[in-house]
Amino acid sequence: MAAVKKVVLAYSGGLDTSVIARWLQDTYECEVVTFTADIGQGEEVEPARAKAQALGIKEIYIDDLREEFVRDFVFPMFRANTIYEGEYLLGTSIARPLITKRMIEIANQTGADAVAHGATGKGNDQVRFELGAYALKPGVKVIAPWREWDLNSREKLMAYCESHNIPVDFSSNKKKSPYSMDANLLHISYEGGILEDPWAEAEEDMWRWSVSPQQAPDTPTYIEVTFEKGDIVAIDGQPMSPATVLAKLNQIGGANGIGRLDIVENRYVGMKSRGCYETPGGTIMLKAHRAIESITLDREVAHLKDSLMPRYAEMIYNGYWWAPERKMLQVAIDESQHVVNGDVRLKLYKGAVEVVGRRSADTLFDEKIATFEDDAGAYNQKDAEGFIKLNALRMRIAAGKGRSML
Amino acid sequence: MAAVKKVVLAYSGGLDTSVIARWLQDTYECEVVTFTADIGQGEEVEPARAKAQALGIKEIYIDDLREEFVRDFVFPMFRANTIYEGEYLLGTSIARPLITKRMIEIANQTGADAVAHGATGKGNDQVRFELGAYALKPGVKVIAPWREWDLNSREKLMAYCESHNIPVDFSSNKKKSPYSMDANLLHISYEGGILEDPWAEAEEDMWRWSVSPQQAPDTPTYIEVTFEKGDIVAIDGQPMSPATVLAKLNQIGGANGIGRLDIVENRYVGMKSRGCYETPGGTIMLKAHRAIESITLDREVAHLKDSLMPRYAEMIYNGYWWAPERKMLQVAIDESQHVVNGDVRLKLYKGAVEVVGRRSADTLFDEKIATFEDDAGAYNQKDAEGFIKLNALRMRIAAGKGRSML
Amino acid sequence: MAAVKKVVLAYSGGLDTSVIARWLQDTYECEVVTFTADIGQGEEVEPARAKAQALGIKEIYIDDLREEFVRDFVFPMFRANTIYEGEYLLGTSIARPLITKRMIEIANQTGADAVAHGATGKGNDQVRFELGAYALKPGVKVIAPWREWDLNSREKLMAYCESHNIPVDFSSNKKKSPYSMDANLLHISYEGGILEDPWAEAEEDMWRWSVSPQQAPDTPTYIEVTFEKGDIVAIDGQPMSPATVLAKLNQIGGANGIGRLDIVENRYVGMKSRGCYETPGGTIMLKAHRAIESITLDREVAHLKDSLMPRYAEMIYNGYWWAPERKMLQVAIDESQHVVNGDVRLKLYKGAVEVVGRRSADTLFDEKIATFEDDAGAYNQKDAEGFIKLNALRMRIAAGKGRSML
Amino acid sequence: MAAVKKVVLAYSGGLDTSVIARWLQDTYECEVVTFTADIGQGEEVEPARAKAQALGIKEIYIDDLREEFVRDFVFPMFRANTIYEGEYLLGTSIARPLITKRMIEIANQTGADAVAHGATGKGNDQVRFELGAYALKPGVKVIAPWREWDLNSREKLMAYCESHNIPVDFSSNKKKSPYSMDANLLHISYEGGILEDPWAEAEEDMWRWSVSPQQAPDTPTYIEVTFEKGDIVAIDGQPMSPATVLAKLNQIGGANGIGRLDIVENRYVGMKSRGCYETPGGTIMLKAHRAIESITLDREVAHLKDSLMPRYAEMIYNGYWWAPERKMLQVAIDESQHVVNGDVRLKLYKGAVEVVGRRSADTLFDEKIATFEDDAGAYNQKDAEGFIKLNALRMRIAAGKGRSML
Repeated sequence: MAAVKKVVLAYSGGLDTSVIARWLQDTYECEVVTFTADIGQGEEVEPARAKAQALGIKEIYIDDLREEFVRDFVFPMFRANTIYEGEYLLGTSIARPLITKRMIEIANQTGADAVAHGATGKGNDQVRFELGAYALKPGVKVIAPWREWDLNSREKLMAYCESHNIPVDFSSNKKKSPYSMDANLLHISYEGGILEDPWAEAEEDMWRWSVSPQQAPDTPTYIEVTFEKGDIVAIDGQPMSPATVLAKLNQIGGANGIGRLDIVENRYVGMKSRGCYETPGGTIMLKAHRAIESITLDREVAHLKDSLMPRYAEMIYNGYWWAPERKMLQVAIDESQHVVNGDVRLKLYKGAVEVVGRRSADTLFDEKIATFEDDAGAYNQKDAEGFIKLNALRMRIAAGKGRSML
Repeated sequence: MAAVKKVVLAYSGGLDTSVIARWLQDTYECEVVTFTADIGQGEEVEPARAKAQALGIKEIYIDDLREEFVRDFVFPMFRANTIYEGEYLLGTSIARPLITKRMIEIANQTGADAVAHGATGKGNDQVRFELGAYALKPGVKVIAPWREWDLNSREKLMAYCESHNIPVDFSSNKKKSPYSMDANLLHISYEGGILEDPWAEAEEDMWRWSVSPQQAPDTPTYIEVTFEKGDIVAIDGQPMSPATVLAKLNQIGGANGIGRLDIVENRYVGMKSRGCYETPGGTIMLKAHRAIESITLDREVAHLKDSLMPRYAEMIYNGYWWAPERKMLQVAIDESQHVVNGDVRLKLYKGAVEVVGRRSADTLFDEKIATFEDDAGAYNQKDAEGFIKLNALRMRIAAGKGRSML
Repeated sequence: MAAVKKVVLAYSGGLDTSVIARWLQDTYECEVVTFTADIGQGEEVEPARAKAQALGIKEIYIDDLREEFVRDFVFPMFRANTIYEGEYLLGTSIARPLITKRMIEIANQTGADAVAHGATGKGNDQVRFELGAYALKPGVKVIAPWREWDLNSREKLMAYCESHNIPVDFSSNKKKSPYSMDANLLHISYEGGILEDPWAEAEEDMWRWSVSPQQAPDTPTYIEVTFEKGDIVAIDGQPMSPATVLAKLNQIGGANGIGRLDIVENRYVGMKSRGCYETPGGTIMLKAHRAIESITLDREVAHLKDSLMPRYAEMIYNGYWWAPERKMLQVAIDESQHVVNGDVRLKLYKGAVEVVGRRSADTLFDEKIATFEDDAGAYNQKDAEGFIKLNALRMRIAAGKGRSML
Repeated sequence: MAAVKKVVLAYSGGLDTSVIARWLQDTYECEVVTFTADIGQGEEVEPARAKAQALGIKEIYIDDLREEFVRDFVFPMFRANTIYEGEYLLGTSIARPLITKRMIEIANQTGADAVAHGATGKGNDQVRFELGAYALKPGVKVIAPWREWDLNSREKLMAYCESHNIPVDFSSNKKKSPYSMDANLLHISYEGGILEDPWAEAEEDMWRWSVSPQQAPDTPTYIEVTFEKGDIVAIDGQPMSPATVLAKLNQIGGANGIGRLDIVENRYVGMKSRGCYETPGGTIMLKAHRAIESITLDREVAHLKDSLMPRYAEMIYNGYWWAPERKMLQVAIDESQHVVNGDVRLKLYKGAVEVVGRRSADTLFDEKIATFEDDAGAYNQKDAEGFIKLNALRMRIAAGKGRSML
């Protein structure tokens, strides 16, 4: 066990990280700095201060990172229409790089030589935290208590609290969810419990952010979102900050039963796991972003983006946000977005998002050429013959020499 | 104008291709063979016989290709989770290679030296027909009347009918749709009319196969589909042929308002165009296929498939089904599907498809390892440390040498 | 035939383009502006002035574009280690976008509404010229005489000269090469003649820039090149401009028999063609660039570049330099090159280039970690176990469930 | 430390693995089975029997795997024109999967529950051995002594021999190379020693298989190789088995100074390392294979292969031969090779391989179309105009709407 002087702990104020705070003091005999961030998880962060103080913590950091989260992480990711394994909007993955960045900043400010987190040894989050930490502060010591201790059940944790006089108030844990959950402005996730059987349907009362489609309003809701350089800057004509945009879309989307997802995904550590996700705002954003791109992006740029996206999604899912290959792709993605400006009109109804209109000063949609009516010579249909003939040439030669495609 | 002896015409029995049949006789002074296929467009094909006879056609081919269409074209495409530009399920694109193959077979049987089609000079279909024709019969002459003649409006076509005594009954055309439509077992498409304004919402009465989500039943419909080697072979335990599977899913999906899509897409000939599509069965199949793959496919195989998919979709969209590069990808895709067996349970409700369960004898989901509970040593959490440390090594070295990722 | 007022002609001063200059005047009854560029083809460009004047041309542009060529086209391309079809260094392809750009600038300056070039209708160059022209000046009229006229042999061209009093001096054409050649600072190419038989070896006296390896010096030549941001800025410690770097490397490489290539390539227009190329400096640059990247680039960045390269090469070969997808890739490539600084030592000997040393202030090579000797704990070998175990997990699970890889 | 009953050791008969054999017996108190393979490393394998016997080994396996190695591993890899990081022909990487497969077969035959190897904890080989072992026998225990013991120098190993009475004759080690070497039929590699300084040139007397280009013959050697389905089956008209082909090419190539390589590469475990490689036969094969593909492969198939190759190379380098994603790519690669038949003529001279001719009954090279002379209408140059116009359409529209590419 390496000597540790001071450790920055990603601290939620909950049971697990409260135990960790004490366990770190006891086990490493080091100072603990707590860091609690508001990234839109929907719980007050200020109460974490008193809890940390009660644990004897002297350096306590509490930050509101919501705007930074959406502006510098969520929005850049959505510029790429990022989806992991065809379904997942990466709500958990994208929050980790920000937490890590801030943790390392605090480590540098406070002279800490270590960081600690409450992620388990089976999941992706440990990887995301630690890859980022090593990339930003290569000499840092990383402590992952779940991989070290034997407090591997809620009962043992409670016992530890008692035996170590951890005075945290867990009244909020009374109606403890049977699921392992994680939330931020982009999504809330559910794992564990009955979800460990992939044939079992999730219970309706599991979902927290969205009404069930059945409970959603019987009339559609229309909204109009405005993009600048690939990011939404206004809803229904109202300019908004990034975090406000996402919060608003979550609210509208949730009210219409939008954004529920139930999948089995492949973790970076090698196993499959079942997860349920609620991403109301993100689901709307993805659909709207594709729609505004559909009229403003060049075809080959759009296709190049599509072909790069799976790898970009993998980078984020696997924890390589703070890696040079992610940055290299990001500049290409961002380069493509200068022209992604305009409005998209959407219809939200009982779980479904439909695009019903898109317009842009930067549109490449050309009515004169696209029309089924007379185009007054804008497009010469005769050109198509040569286009096809030469595109077919290699196949004509091959077939002429006897190669069969059947 | 090249000399043509005999031409096989893809003949629908409608106004356009009836005019073409006569125009070919008049213009090229050649024999015309008509070929009409049932690919699930939902109209009787047998009436085309009498219409062709009335036009003086002697060799008339009418084929039911529905099973071949789904088995050899739709299913192979869905094995790749194919989507064009993030949205489009390629309903029109995938029908063309089959039509072309059959047209060329008939040309070979009847000794024809040319083929003709009714696709316009602005669209993708001309490319798909002709690339296939050249690939399968390199010396064939292709005639595309819409690129040659000047009958570029419905009025001129009607006038041509009259002046050339074309006795076709167009009563069915009285309530002519303002949209250009194309249908087969996989989808129905709409273009033109008010859709040429991408800001205008499609009218509700345009849609033909699906009820509007608002009109759909107020209670969800659950179905269970069974996969073998990546293809659906049974619904709710009932074994079915490929075409029956798709027809059944269209019916269930359509009744629940599923599968409507409104997009602007990039055509291969270089322009953007607005299209609306109804693909009820395909929408369900895609979702279900991803779900069964999620528990049966290896992670890296799944990711490799995802990274190849955009190119595969482009090949099909652009008309390169009968090309060796498509075949090369297909063998890789098919190789991956041997293990894609099992059941998926789906919930259909007012336009949305949700996966609620998946199970398989070939599952790679391992409850013992994935569990949040005690796994009895199935997974050693300590391994994660080395995994992360070595994955971070290149970044630690770089950061240690002063490279900053911020 | 469209009405043309004034046309800018890419004019070499040779037979073909002299005939074109006159033919344009006669056929289109338009003014002709000639444009002759020095891109390092190794012939004087100034004599083109008198020849153009003799043809009655009033607006004559003669430019030395060598520095711009290497700085803005060759160097950016080499940053990606670009090779087409595993072999070809794209010497012809990369010169076309520059010619086109300048032609369009001149068209804009002189008020011309058309451009013309001397490329044939079978090759790639017509595509490269014209795609660029349309991208930079969408309304431009492009005239490609070789696709229009019937002067399809040298004899007919000579006859045209005589009958049209074209007073150009073709004495330099007396010892006319049997090959079709194209040269610029990056390479010289040979096509046609006996090369049309892909089984026939090129004759030794065809090659112009390099001595045969057999004739090269019997002792190796060592050179040292210095990179800044991916570009060579000095040779043997001597700072040089881009064009000087390439000229110098051509001279040293040619003297050592380096850079000959004999391939069959796939043209964009659909046919295969045999070409021989001499690219002495480029061959050295590619090898050196990979070497400097090998110690300065992050592994994943290098691999990402490698995976993008074939598509980037295709874009350049096919003529899409002035396309947004090329620009999108370029910003990613350029982003990766900030750290590509340092020196490479090379050994040139009878046709072969060997890297024998590389060093950099930005090196990521870490002797302490890489060493076979005791590394004093810089690397913990125990980490490898967890690394391997988790990377193997998905395969262990699959094998445990009975999947066989044999 | 897990209980081990019987372990199969990859045994070379050299110092390291002899110490391992004894150390395993002492440390794990288990039976040791030795396995020694001839994969063309150029040393007798039979002497390993007596050495193993002297160590008290009772089950001794000695196999000649040369034909299997080339037929089932080297040739399939070369069908993809596989190169890692633009330079490395993967000589070490491709031997590991075969060794592993045979080790696991022997484990199954002898009822062993573990395997052991002599690869270090810093290199790629440990990964390749172990990933394969886990994929083929998921419950196997892997022992990697170099990651466990502290015998981390030659001196300590010698001391161990003495103190443990290891009676192996190391006379052959007297003139011990300062380099860490690995050899098989495909290549010999060198690492360590002065190579750890990437600026230092390798000493001439390091190289073992090839003469220096300076010492090579002063006249070129011409050879002709014949391909069937992408593999070489004859040299100069003489049919040969796979291993004989490679041995013969090594001999001819080595005599002409061909196949030396000096690079810095990125290891999978995260560090950069300097390696020198001699791959005479492989260098010739790669060049010849590209040449025969150049006339027999469809363009898009060739480009698809090129775009997949970097990932395929990564899989092999990183040790994922026995992984489903490698197999998935392999079927696609193999599918492309049915037509890769014919002859290639090569000129070997002082380190350089030049292709001077290629011919095939499956050629797609069409002289009639490719010719610069009159092609009698085989190709219609007018088609090029439409081809270019439509390929330019998206860029013309964009430019027409004011987008600038400059």
